[in-house]
Amino acid sequence: MPFKQKIVIIGVGLLGGSLALALKKKRNIQLVGWNHRFSSRKKASRILDVAPTFEKAIEGADIILLCSHSGSISKVLKKITTHLTPKTLVMDVSSVKGEVVKEGNRLSGTANYFVPCHPMAGKEKSGIAFADGDLYKKKFVFITPLNRTPEKLLQKAVLFWKEIGAVPLILNATQHDQNVALTSHLPHLLAAAYMGVYEKFQKRAPSIHQAVGSGFKDFTRIAGSNPVMWTDIVEMNAPEIRHFLRQYVQTLNFLKRNLRKGRRSYWLSFFKKAHAAREKLT
Amino acid sequence: MPFKQKIVIIGVGLLGGSLALALKKKRNIQLVGWNHRFSSRKKASRILDVAPTFEKAIEGADIILLCSHSGSISKVLKKITTHLTPKTLVMDVSSVKGEVVKEGNRLSGTANYFVPCHPMAGKEKSGIAFADGDLYKKKFVFITPLNRTPEKLLQKAVLFWKEIGAVPLILNATQHDQNVALTSHLPHLLAAAYMGVYEKFQKRAPSIHQAVGSGFKDFTRIAGSNPVMWTDIVEMNAPEIRHFLRQYVQTLNFLKRNLRKGRRSYWLSFFKKAHAAREKLT
Repeated sequence: MPFKQKIVIIGVGLLGGSLALALKKKRNIQLVGWNHRFSSRKKASRILDVAPTFEKAIEGADIILLCSHSGSISKVLKKITTHLTPKTLVMDVSSVKGEVVKEGNRLSGTANYFVPCHPMAGKEKSGIAFADGDLYKKKFVFITPLNRTPEKLLQKAVLFWKEIGAVPLILNATQHDQNVALTSHLPHLLAAAYMGVYEKFQKRAPSIHQAVGSGFKDFTRIAGSNPVMWTDIVEMNAPEIRHFLRQYVQTLNFLKRNLRKGRRSYWLSFFKKAHAAREKLT
Repeated sequence: MPFKQKIVIIGVGLLGGSLALALKKKRNIQLVGWNHRFSSRKKASRILDVAPTFEKAIEGADIILLCSHSGSISKVLKKITTHLTPKTLVMDVSSVKGEVVKEGNRLSGTANYFVPCHPMAGKEKSGIAFADGDLYKKKFVFITPLNRTPEKLLQKAVLFWKEIGAVPLILNATQHDQNVALTSHLPHLLAAAYMGVYEKFQKRAPSIHQAVGSGFKDFTRIAGSNPVMWTDIVEMNAPEIRHFLRQYVQTLNFLKRNLRKGRRSYWLSFFKKAHAAREKLT
């Protein structure tokens, strides 16, 4: 019988479920899932084997993927420590890395098995029902090592992501958290805040929904994201988000003044710059 | 020979070109286009007949569609007046209606031929190359009549939009401009402003583009829109845009304070409300 690698997914939702579907395509893998709630375990059992207990799930694992909410990672990390073997590699997929890395550096020995990761993959829909085996394909995955992460373990993590078609990148946690505050966390906050203004106006002008086009839908799509997940993220990366929010509000105050004065050359240059910057992205 | 309706499109870009493609599917229509610039006329001639002069284009027209930028509508309206027959219906497709309606009410006789319209259809890309014969299908089209618009003319406009698969809605111009300030104009401004913050950060952290995912791309997609078109729109609807921008900045200042204090219950309720509001849209 060929050697089978045991890969365990803790938290089989959108991200964990998509990992499961991607890994199911590979050979010689024993895939085991676990969810905290019974109802979620039942749902997960439709796409992978679910262990009878948490301990059974992680027993003898080669790789453990922590795919539960950002706020739960530190807790789960502590819980699994006593069950690991020297060969185990543990990775998470949470969106904020500073706190997780700090906790990993604090707990002695953690660097020998835990490699913090953040794949730039997701949807505004959450739950295993939206899982997609191609979710990670060609997506960047940030790996933010601990202070004492052994090179061999790091390369094992790199290889894991490459094998499911993702593009791993190594980055320090501080830079990572700054980058995603700007490209992901603050936009989520802004889209959600915009829905607040919209709701308020809708109370006195219910026909407003007729004026909603594809532009508005795209702009606010991420406001439909999971509230618990985003509460965790905002709490864990508040200072970085606040830094960019402050800059953004300054910009908006400037626009507010220009809307009163109305200089055509100002708006032309404003929109041209934005257009050029946005064109570079696609 | 059956009677052929002459339909003229002034400004054959994304919106005008898409109208041309939609109208080409119908029988008994003589379709004629006109663009201000020679190069644009040349491009337009690939999808419809282009007249040798502006006067030739509109001569004897049954319907004239003004599809040039918002800022040019009043000027073109004045220019065509002397060339119209009693049967002609003129419509525009510009995004701000207050100014156009005011101008239409001011010029005597205009109500007998001009019906201001605004189809909720578009793309962040502009130009005839992106024209699409299905662009208007099932899209709302706001019709904002003048004070003295005859019912028969209004119904002719309604029929025109229905026949190309759109859904016409009659609304007063003030309410229209308020609605689209909230659902379209301010989001364009906000997305463009966000690209400014992004560009500034990119100068000191060039790797930021690696952290750009689908959420960021959707949130900022409309920042790629045509700068001249959006300068016109912002200039023409500045007070309404400013009204909502003021509300939005107030909300953001509140969030900024909460990012410092950090109450979990606040964020949970904030994201839950946004989630519920956004779910209603799709």
